[in-house]
Amino acid sequence: MNVILLNSENFINKNAENTYQPQACIYDEKIIHHVISVLGAKAGDELKVGEIGGNLGVATIERIDNKQLILKDIYLDTPPPPKLEMTVVLALPRPKVLRRLMMDMAAIGVRHIVLVNSFRTDKSYWSSPHLARLDEYLIEGLQQGVDTVLPTLTLARRFKPFVEDQLPALIGDGQAVVAHPYAQVGFGQFVSSCVPSVILVGAEGGFIPYEIELLASVGVVAASLGRRILRTEAAVNALLGRFLSAC
Amino acid sequence: MNVILLNSENFINKNAENTYQPQACIYDEKIIHHVISVLGAKAGDELKVGEIGGNLGVATIERIDNKQLILKDIYLDTPPPPKLEMTVVLALPRPKVLRRLMMDMAAIGVRHIVLVNSFRTDKSYWSSPHLARLDEYLIEGLQQGVDTVLPTLTLARRFKPFVEDQLPALIGDGQAVVAHPYAQVGFGQFVSSCVPSVILVGAEGGFIPYEIELLASVGVVAASLGRRILRTEAAVNALLGRFLSAC
Repeated sequence: MNVILLNSENFINKNAENTYQPQACIYDEKIIHHVISVLGAKAGDELKVGEIGGNLGVATIERIDNKQLILKDIYLDTPPPPKLEMTVVLALPRPKVLRRLMMDMAAIGVRHIVLVNSFRTDKSYWSSPHLARLDEYLIEGLQQGVDTVLPTLTLARRFKPFVEDQLPALIGDGQAVVAHPYAQVGFGQFVSSCVPSVILVGAEGGFIPYEIELLASVGVVAASLGRRILRTEAAVNALLGRFLSAC
Repeated sequence: MNVILLNSENFINKNAENTYQPQACIYDEKIIHHVISVLGAKAGDELKVGEIGGNLGVATIERIDNKQLILKDIYLDTPPPPKLEMTVVLALPRPKVLRRLMMDMAAIGVRHIVLVNSFRTDKSYWSSPHLARLDEYLIEGLQQGVDTVLPTLTLARRFKPFVEDQLPALIGDGQAVVAHPYAQVGFGQFVSSCVPSVILVGAEGGFIPYEIELLASVGVVAASLGRRILRTEAAVNALLGRFLSAC
């Protein structure tokens, strides 16, 4: 947690004109534990904070105990970093890895995330309780990556209608690429000439040939990271890492 | 697990001249569970296998039950993929993330891994029972990435002697870069002109200024992936992903 994000419920005395510095009150146990045990901070210390959807800045601890953290002198004057202007379409992965994937994509600054069904997505994944916690995971990612702006999130429970009806608009005038270990084109080679507007990544086992063909029919190029097969998490970071210096 | 790796203890009837096809016997519960429950394979089915340090190939299941897996007709005729000719020096991370980090580096094909102490490495990490299981994690990574060749592994419990006495030889005639969020140079910019021989990554919180300066004194350039701070795992994959297409 490299920044503590505040939402409208945390603020006390905040008015639209920002005519005086607001205070904030936090009851989140994870944040309180982090501030006490990891940062070892106490009343009077300064913390890095941000407002969800707003600016980054600092605040001073007015009071802290195991139940609540009261912040004063909240100055939010630094705009968040630019987003990675890209849609990442991910075949819904195993619940176990979903949290870290969402966190990492938010931390890296992906603008739009689509979780899509695929042949190799187990049907049970769509009824996982993790799906109700996606916003929480994204906020964890923003707190890791020091950003305030939530990615937009789309759930697409049917692959074909998503590809045919929604994907072309997401690609727009840009390029789209699907990570596919058996593609002839190298991913590095493909992105050396463009920053794609859409990157698609399969679940474990990848997309099946039918899915790759359907994607190709709307202009998605299959590209490979090489012979090695990476865990989905590792692949997503390996793919997106290339675009980071540019942010 | 995208390939099952066999070691010399697994082989039955293997002779140096390879004058007949060997058999193999596997007692590893994880592998047996994977073959039965994930692959749903049974006697007569073919599996992807490899020999640690040797070739990749296929084998046929002669017999399988919950206790043992007997393989016959083992043909190992495909060389493993080329390694990523690079040393990755990682500040020893929290035990919890060590397994995945080792797996990912092995899967990506890193030739040499150094785990080094750093100011922000908690001393207790060096007595974690996970340190006795590093080879196991590396083999898991090879089974993920479909490779047979273990990275070499060095543990460096003292930062300064490592940097002064061992690091220069690892850098050799190449370039070395340390990932540092506050560096002026962009990582993408740095590696656009060279593939570094050594990449260094800090633990959570990164290296401290003294460590960055000591590294600079032996020629290590600090480069940044941008303003965003990634989890160590995500950072390692984001950094190494750039070199993957070339493998």
